[in-house]
Amino acid sequence: MKFYDCSTAPSPRRVRMFIAEKKIEIEVVEVDLGAREQHSAEFQKINPYRTVPALVLDDGSVLTSSTAIVHYLESRFPEPALIGSSAEERALVMDLDWHIENEGFMAVGEAFRNRARSFAKHALTGRHEYQQIPELVERGAQRTAHFYEWLNSRLEQRQFIAGDNFSVADITAFVAVEFSAWIKQQPGPDHANIARWHTEVSERPSAGV
Amino acid sequence: MKFYDCSTAPSPRRVRMFIAEKKIEIEVVEVDLGAREQHSAEFQKINPYRTVPALVLDDGSVLTSSTAIVHYLESRFPEPALIGSSAEERALVMDLDWHIENEGFMAVGEAFRNRARSFAKHALTGRHEYQQIPELVERGAQRTAHFYEWLNSRLEQRQFIAGDNFSVADITAFVAVEFSAWIKQQPGPDHANIARWHTEVSERPSAGV
Repeated sequence: MKFYDCSTAPSPRRVRMFIAEKKIEIEVVEVDLGAREQHSAEFQKINPYRTVPALVLDDGSVLTSSTAIVHYLESRFPEPALIGSSAEERALVMDLDWHIENEGFMAVGEAFRNRARSFAKHALTGRHEYQQIPELVERGAQRTAHFYEWLNSRLEQRQFIAGDNFSVADITAFVAVEFSAWIKQQPGPDHANIARWHTEVSERPSAGV
Repeated sequence: MKFYDCSTAPSPRRVRMFIAEKKIEIEVVEVDLGAREQHSAEFQKINPYRTVPALVLDDGSVLTSSTAIVHYLESRFPEPALIGSSAEERALVMDLDWHIENEGFMAVGEAFRNRARSFAKHALTGRHEYQQIPELVERGAQRTAHFYEWLNSRLEQRQFIAGDNFSVADITAFVAVEFSAWIKQQPGPDHANIARWHTEVSERPSAGV
């Protein structure tokens, strides 16, 4: 397998943390998004969507979404389980992860990509050009605030997002919260539960990757 | 289990088709979105996100995303396999489904919900109010056009989206294409492969649900 990464970008960090939690040995190829290397002819042959993360499997096929990548890695390296241990727990983690990706991670991305000058023509990731829409900076910020409200309440009586066990839902949420520094909208004094959980997750070796 | 559905809405239709393909017997509860029943106190107790589909499991827990629901049903009712039969095939189907949801289904939704008068304060699904942004009508249309280009090319030499087997990726794409009638932007003369595939999928009994 070969993992196409970018060490400064939030999306592949979800996969990096997952790999670090499982202690998987895997060949890593750095893609320099700053130099727009994802748009090179060479990288397009690997991932026509022109995004990272991408995981090339031993049979040569390629996975291009964090979700499919982590599920594949979970099937190949089941321990420690990061997507639940029973069908019910697995479904719960997937459900939470879906909400966190769509309502947290993408909310921060919406606020960020519609303002940052370097994304003027790339307000959405990928190979197509989409102009920025200034109203989405505000909407992204509103959605991020709602996400914090939800996350803080979710962590009220739980150590981790899905309950007693650290899971991929914690990874996605942790990376989203760290990503929020890019829009200067980190969790605040109303989010004591997030703060407690964030400190705990920060102390895991995987948080350093 | 109990499946909270709305017979006129595209999102729960993904789950309906999945259930029909598997011929699962399951109790269905209709939620009248037209009457805003998803915002009722009663429904909020079932699904605080105020969306359908929702699946209540036998242990009382609830799944609220199509993705988690279909994966749970696949684990409980493995035949016929709709999310691949090997780890690699499963990952491929998940990857495709992720792209189709994000780049197809949500593109149509973006164009639709930012224009339709009844969604003036609900440009995004769920419990929070978000105002419409007129620019997103156009962006949604652009994204839908890009999705058709991708889908048509994907179906060039394949019977179904993942290859020889009908999968949940076909369901998500089929529902997205049908949903596009709501924005009057259905696939056109440039999309012969989509037309061939759409006709084939339309003939499956599950397409009638």
